[in-house]
Formats: sequence, C-alpha cells, structure tokens
Amino acid sequence: MNTASPAGAMQPYALTLDRFIEHAAKWHGAVEVVTGGGAGARTSYSALRDRSNRLSGAFRALGLEPGDNLAVLAWNSQAHMECWYGAVGIGIVCHTLNPRLSPAHLAEMIGQAANRVLVISPDLTPLAEALIALCPTLEHVVVLEEPGAEVSLPSRGRVVAWRYEDLLRDLGQDADWGGFDENAPAGLCFTSGTTGAPKGVTYTHRSNYLHTVHQLQADAAGLGARDSLLIAVPMFHANGWGLPFAGPAVGAKLVLPGRHQDGPSLAGLINAEGVTVAAGVSTVWLGLVDHLDRTGEQVPSLQRIMLGGSPTPQALLDRLEQRLGVKVQTSWGMTELSPLGAVTPASASVRKASQSGRPPIGVDLLLTDADGAPLPRQRGHEGRLRVRGAAVIERYFGYDEPAVDADGWFDTGDLAVIDDEGNLSITGRAKDLIKSGGEWINPVEIEAIIGALPEVALVAVVARAHAKWGERPILVIQPRKGAEIADQALLDILRARVAPWWLPDAIVRVAAMPLATTGKIDKARLRAEHG
Amino acid sequence: MNTASPAGAMQPYALTLDRFIEHAAKWHGAVEVVTGGGAGARTSYSALRDRSNRLSGAFRALGLEPGDNLAVLAWNSQAHMECWYGAVGIGIVCHTLNPRLSPAHLAEMIGQAANRVLVISPDLTPLAEALIALCPTLEHVVVLEEPGAEVSLPSRGRVVAWRYEDLLRDLGQDADWGGFDENAPAGLCFTSGTTGAPKGVTYTHRSNYLHTVHQLQADAAGLGARDSLLIAVPMFHANGWGLPFAGPAVGAKLVLPGRHQDGPSLAGLINAEGVTVAAGVSTVWLGLVDHLDRTGEQVPSLQRIMLGGSPTPQALLDRLEQRLGVKVQTSWGMTELSPLGAVTPASASVRKASQSGRPPIGVDLLLTDADGAPLPRQRGHEGRLRVRGAAVIERYFGYDEPAVDADGWFDTGDLAVIDDEGNLSITGRAKDLIKSGGEWINPVEIEAIIGALPEVALVAVVARAHAKWGERPILVIQPRKGAEIADQALLDILRARVAPWWLPDAIVRVAAMPLATTGKIDKARLRAEHG
Repeated sequence: MNTASPAGAMQPYALTLDRFIEHAAKWHGAVEVVTGGGAGARTSYSALRDRSNRLSGAFRALGLEPGDNLAVLAWNSQAHMECWYGAVGIGIVCHTLNPRLSPAHLAEMIGQAANRVLVISPDLTPLAEALIALCPTLEHVVVLEEPGAEVSLPSRGRVVAWRYEDLLRDLGQDADWGGFDENAPAGLCFTSGTTGAPKGVTYTHRSNYLHTVHQLQADAAGLGARDSLLIAVPMFHANGWGLPFAGPAVGAKLVLPGRHQDGPSLAGLINAEGVTVAAGVSTVWLGLVDHLDRTGEQVPSLQRIMLGGSPTPQALLDRLEQRLGVKVQTSWGMTELSPLGAVTPASASVRKASQSGRPPIGVDLLLTDADGAPLPRQRGHEGRLRVRGAAVIERYFGYDEPAVDADGWFDTGDLAVIDDEGNLSITGRAKDLIKSGGEWINPVEIEAIIGALPEVALVAVVARAHAKWGERPILVIQPRKGAEIADQALLDILRARVAPWWLPDAIVRVAAMPLATTGKIDKARLRAEHG
Repeated sequence: MNTASPAGAMQPYALTLDRFIEHAAKWHGAVEVVTGGGAGARTSYSALRDRSNRLSGAFRALGLEPGDNLAVLAWNSQAHMECWYGAVGIGIVCHTLNPRLSPAHLAEMIGQAANRVLVISPDLTPLAEALIALCPTLEHVVVLEEPGAEVSLPSRGRVVAWRYEDLLRDLGQDADWGGFDENAPAGLCFTSGTTGAPKGVTYTHRSNYLHTVHQLQADAAGLGARDSLLIAVPMFHANGWGLPFAGPAVGAKLVLPGRHQDGPSLAGLINAEGVTVAAGVSTVWLGLVDHLDRTGEQVPSLQRIMLGGSPTPQALLDRLEQRLGVKVQTSWGMTELSPLGAVTPASASVRKASQSGRPPIGVDLLLTDADGAPLPRQRGHEGRLRVRGAAVIERYFGYDEPAVDADGWFDTGDLAVIDDEGNLSITGRAKDLIKSGGEWINPVEIEAIIGALPEVALVAVVARAHAKWGERPILVIQPRKGAEIADQALLDILRARVAPWWLPDAIVRVAAMPLATTGKIDKARLRAEHG
C-alpha cells in the first residue's frame, strides 16, 4: 500500500435493526401496516416508527437496559411490531415466546432469560397469570391492545400490570436509536422442541440485518414496495421468518393476522388488503384452500405463497397453485438459521414439493457422513446436512460449548440430497428414521408418496415399538374433506414404490392431525397416541 | 443481561468479495460467463473461480501483497473479472482505470496508487507503452487475451511483459481466499473528472458486499438465476455498477461485451445470449435503438434496462420502452456511492425520465441549503443533495480531511427535489447552473423540455460568457437520425415553458455529441467549443 497517503475510507454504517423501520418511515412513510381481528386496525410506517420510538423511552422507564431481555408472548400485530422496534432500537433483546407452549415450558424459558418485563396479547391474560405465579423474575406485565380483543389486566398483585396504551402515554419518550455495536444481541428465540429439548438461539443485530438483505433478493423473498405482504407465520417463530424486517426494508405493505389464522379470516384479509405475497406453514394454507373450496371465494390479488416449516405434500402444493392461482415457493429453514437455509425461486419451472431450492448468498451447505466427515461426492448422495453462514448459530443461549464442529459447521440433524443443479431435498431427520430388523426405513419417502394423492390432506409416518423387529412404521393420514381412499388402495400404491418391509403395519385415519405449537405435525404426540 | 450464562452467538461471517464467486461456483457452477468480440468466448462460474484462484498465486509471485494496488486498464471481459476476483480474494486492491483517459491523467493516477503491476486489454498496448514511459513505479505489464484481439506485448525494455495465459500457466497457484478484515480496501476508482479534478474513491470489501446485497432487492437490480445480464457499463466505471458482484451472488448468466459497445455488437450479443436485463448509460442504448431501427431487428429476450450515469431525455426513454418492448429503470448514482443512490422499480407505473426513484435500504438522502443546513421541508423543495450510507465515501484516497460534513453527510454537488412519495429528481448540478444578470438558469430544466421531443436524440445546455449578462445559455442538440426541427420551433416550445430570459442565445446542431470517458455528455468540451 502507498503508505505516503491515507488509503481513503467509506462511511461507517452499523448493521442495526432500527435501520429498517427508519428507512420505511422516511421513504415509504404512508405505507400501511394492517392488523386483522375484530374491525381491524391500520397504521402507517411513519406512525409505527414514532410510536416505537416513544415506546423505547417507556421500556427504559421500566428499568430495561441494553442487553436485557424483554419477554414478548403475542400474536402478529402492530403493537407486537412496535415492541420489537422499540426494544431493539435501544439495544434491548426481544425474547419471543410461543403462546401455545405450556406454562411450565414458558416459565423455564423466562427463567433462563431472566425476564423482568413480559408483554402479552390481550387474550393471553390467563396464561400471563399462570406465568406470574411460576416466574419470580417478572416485575411488569404489559397487555397489548389488539383489534377485536378485550383487555383485562392480570389480577395477581406481585407484578405491576400495564395497559399498553397507558404505558405509552404515561412513560413514552422519544429515544435515540442505534449507536451500539452491530454484534449486540437483538433477539432470543427458543427452538420448538419438536426435535429435542428447547434451546435458545440468540440473534444479533448484524445477523438479522444480513439475513434480511440476503433474503430480499429476487429469487428468495423478492419483496418490493408494490407488494402487500401477509405474515401468517407467527412472529415468535424464528422472527416471523425475518419478514417484519424485510417488509419495512423495501416499503411493502404489511398485513398481520392477529391470532386469527383460520381460512375465513385469512381469505377476508387477503381480499380486503390486496395481499400479493403470503408466508406461512402448509397447514395454514390447507385451511385457506378448504375454506375457498367450501365457499367458492377467490383470492385474485394473491400471486405467491412462501411455504416453510415442514415438508409439504405434493398434492397440497399442486392444489394451492391451481386453486389459488399462485406460485408456491418451497423452502427449508430452522430457528438456528434465522431461519432461511434454502428456497425455490418463484420463477422456477419445476415445482416439486420435495425440493427446497438453493441456498441464497450468505448460506453454505455441506453433506457429511454420520461421523461428520464430508461426503466425497456432494451431489446426488444422501448425507447429514451441515450449515455455515452469516445468520447461522454458533453457540446456544446459556451454553459454553459451541454448536458447531471444528470447521465451524452447524449439524442440522437433517438428512438431505443435493442435485446436480444445487437444489436441496430434505430426505429425513436422522432421529425420525425407523429401525426395523436392523434396517432403516425413512418416513419422509413414504410420506411423499402418500402426500401426493389428491385424497390425502396431511400424512405422517411414525414408529411403533415391535417385539421382534424393534420398530415398525405406522401410517397416519388426515383425508381431504369429503374424499375417501381405502387401506388396500394405499398399500397397493406403496407396494409399487417401496420395499415390502417398508409397508406400514397399520393405517390410522384422523379428522385433524395434531399440530405442534409452530403448526408442524406433532410427531411426538402421534407416536404417543398411535405408536 | 443474564450474566450467569453466555448470551449465545451467531457464526462469524466476514463480508468479503470472494464470497460471491465462491457461491456462484458452488451453487451455479455451470452458469456461463460470455465475452463478446471476434468469435466470442465462454466459460462457467466454476471455471472462472478456479482460474481466478490460481491467478491469486500468480499475483503473489509478482510480489503483490495484501493492501497493494493492482492497476487494471481493460474492457469488460472474462479475464478482467478473473483479475478482480484473483486480486481481491487475497486482499489486493483493484485499481480500475479508464482507457479513454489521456496517458498523462492515467499516469497521475498510477503514480498516486504506486502501482507496480499493470493489467491491460490486448488492444491497449500502445497506451501501455506510453504509460511505461510516464510511470516509474511500473515493473510488470500483463496483457490480457480477449476474443477477436491480437496480443502484442509492449516493446519497452524496462518492465517485464506477460501474456496473461503464460502468467497463469507459469506462476498460477491455488491460494486461500479471505481470512482478512472485511474493512480492508478492495477497489480504487478515480472519479471521472467531468465535475472537478479526479479523486480516488477507495471501496472496501464490506462496502462493496453491502452495496451488492442492498442492490439485489427486487425493486433495484432484482436479478435472479434465470437472468442473463449484459453488463454494458464499463467495469472501470464505479465497479461496473457493482454488477460483476451482483451477478455471481445470485447465479445470473453474465454477458460482457468486451470493447464493443456499438449497436450491432450489442444487438448480436443480446440475441445470441438471451439477455434479459442490460445495464448501461443512455448513449449506449441510443446506439442500440438506432441500429434496430435501421435493420428492423428485434431483441425479444430483453425485458429490462437499468439506466444510469446521466439524465436521460424522456423521448429516448419512451423510444427504448416502445421499440425494445422493455421496462427502463432510471437511477441516480456516483462513483462516491459505489454507485447506487436511487433507482426506479421495474414495476413502477409512472416512468418519468426526470425521476430517479427512491434510495434503497442502506442509503439515506438529505436536502440542504447552500450552507449545508437541512431544509426545514424535505419534500417538494429543491436543495443540495447530501448522502449517507453503507457504501458512501467518507474520505478520498490520499486525503487527510474527510469528504463528509460534521454529521457524516457527503455533499454530492447535485441539486434535487424529492416528491411526497420519496422519489428523487436531480434538478441540476450546482456548478452547471448558469448565472445570467445575477439570476440562475438551470440547464437541466431546459434539457428536459427539449429532450422530450421525438426529433431530438441528445441535448445539452451550456454557458457562454457574455459581456453584459455574465453568462448566457447555449442549446446544443444532436437531432435524431433523419429527423429535423427548426430553431423557431425549438424556441416556441421553450417560450411556452420557461421565462423569456432563459431562452438560449444560440442553437447549435452536432452530428454526434462529444462524450466524456464514461459515456456522459462532455459539457466541458461543449463549453470550450461552443461556449
């Protein structure tokens, strides 16, 4: 380098999350953020930014300091978003909690995070009362106001209970946002526990910022200022897939469904708000398409669905595309990945439910054997999936040891194949495999075959203990409404496609698949009930 | 924070430019990079990555070390891209030079950068010989091989001259990329000098990485793996607008025109390579559309043109959209901004040539008065435009003093208005304003009116010294081929739209507007010849 003269410099620019809402307020200030429920509610990015900023002052007045965790137990709403930006703007960490978990589980997480302030949706007051009894660290409970829900404050005496609007009015004060290290923590989210004991994932400002801008590229979320985005994935589910950051970053209109994720509510919101892009797990879209079939309604504004959370039956994907007239983007992600790991472009010509697309820039994938050694051939061979990237976990909350191997790779526990074009297919979870007579049976392969049948809405294969074989597969199906298919027909279809000893020992029909708290099929419960 | 336990962590991920080509090679390895000229040449991202990596070893063997500047004087080609990635992968800084500058100017820049190695396109050997005579720091000259051009080595004895393929074969060696600070310099680019003395802008890995991912969002470059991208903006012009990074980041096919930017060459490349998106300045597209009109050819694959570099006449924008059947994205940028400052989404319904769209996330704009005080009303009022952001200059190369004000804003020297929706219109350059009788005349306003006429291909208004009034405006037009418009008609049109004293004192017709080295209209030369 020419040491005789300074090399020149670019401006400092910290990758902090306040950037997104500040950008939206300044350049897309009139764009709406709509909350469903009751008569609904709407605000603008400009107003939401100003309220969030005053909320920062209120959080400070409650004694929260940079690095403290704020517990938020709430549905997707304007107030919930204000809490996020109000907290992270001054370095407070948003600890998002899933209202569908048991009080004991939630209390464990609140204890680990040492939460002193809990924010709840108005219908969750009974749950909050249970938590107050279980959580000695709690000092304040703030009850949000959401359209169509009565506010009732928790009646326990030990904590101070606030109506959200009172808090904002009485303690709200403009605050200076940002100015801290971009590597400061911004979020805390415990894994769903469907695949092991819940563990906390700490997102940083930098990791969430980079996840957002990587996600925004055309082949991934591809959002623009002319989009109306329905975030039907809960904000407590891996940051709502990062969409409460991505929407403001580009000035897309946001549509938040509150606690109402049923078909009629979603259809109503989509049509009232001209939704163009919607994100959520497949069970949510199954409810929507069933409702539309029942009523004959259409959703003409909807162009695209971003699907994630769990494998989707091919028949459901085809049905969504045909009935809704949309493109479905399959994807693969995890709480530990913030969550995006791979996604199919909306423009893809092949639309296979089993494929999750390619990783975006910022994510790298590696297939290994069971011992963690890289497979010599990374294309066309099944292996254990490991991940590295800008928004991938290195160490769980409260743990000393890293969650990555010596080369920095995080082991997902998933089995996967990557094809010659780089497309990822998740082929199973290592721990879901069924060992029968010393040989492995992969439930995902059977589920893909049965899930492709038009008569089947949802499908799961779980293990049942067997004296002789160790484990045997059981097929559980939720038939599509009004459709029928005989056991023999199911077995005949399988017989043509899988080895004889893969055929299930029993076929169980359920009216509604049990769902875990994140909307995924609850295989643990299926195993307990039918295994 | 719960200090009893570690807060958890995300993985480290340095924002370095090798990420882009590594990602392309791994996930879009078979996607082509095509170079025009002669019989053309094509490679894949995978091969380009491997050759770039071996080139790193060759650069090291020439004595280049991290932080050293490598001078590159070349047209857009595969070999040019290999030099970029081969250099930045090991921390060498790419100093891009414009072959259309005079040897004296280039020598000044090479001297400032203390370049010891110069890379040139094969047709630039005479220029290299002039530079060898002028630049005592030069030790090696590497002559690239490009399709359709003969390689002749410079004959001067003092430097060691290399054929590119010989260098790669004899000294090439695989290198470890990355592993340095993301704030390390990656590029050096001197401003065009159309608006003052050339000054060097130092890009860092981090600023270029962030510029790329900010630019990739759907409303800006919006590129995807199914795109074929023609980079008709020179790579020495503010990193080719960052597109040699953005293309690999999403796996878009790249089409590089070599030194041939004429209409027939571009039309041929677009059709042969199925180009969907093309980027360049308006004079380049004027050449294309004139050629198509002449031959009756079509360019059916082309969907979108990203336009930048200078204001575009409305008539040209309309003509491009209609004749080519494309969407034109207007934009505003500067070398000091890496370069993107604002851009119109391809989906925008209003397509006004005078509008440059909104800033993307990562860029912020401020309008001030002449003293730098923020205008109290930022919408609907003209002011001086200042910029802050993740890829905006803080200090020029070789300067001690910052290029920003006390609040961190860079003064662009442009005049601008921002409308209620946040759309930027550049209304003039402070230094181009014409002062007549103590009052300001804004050339851009007159140019917009005349530029909207279908008879006019290009237009410029410059000042002529005047004994009584100080300065008076002169109108210079390049009529569209075969079109005519009388002086009286031009004056009548202006008379209806501007104040009487804004009417030009003279109207000059030129067959071809003089262009500066970046393809912008050379107002300095117009002033010298007609002012």
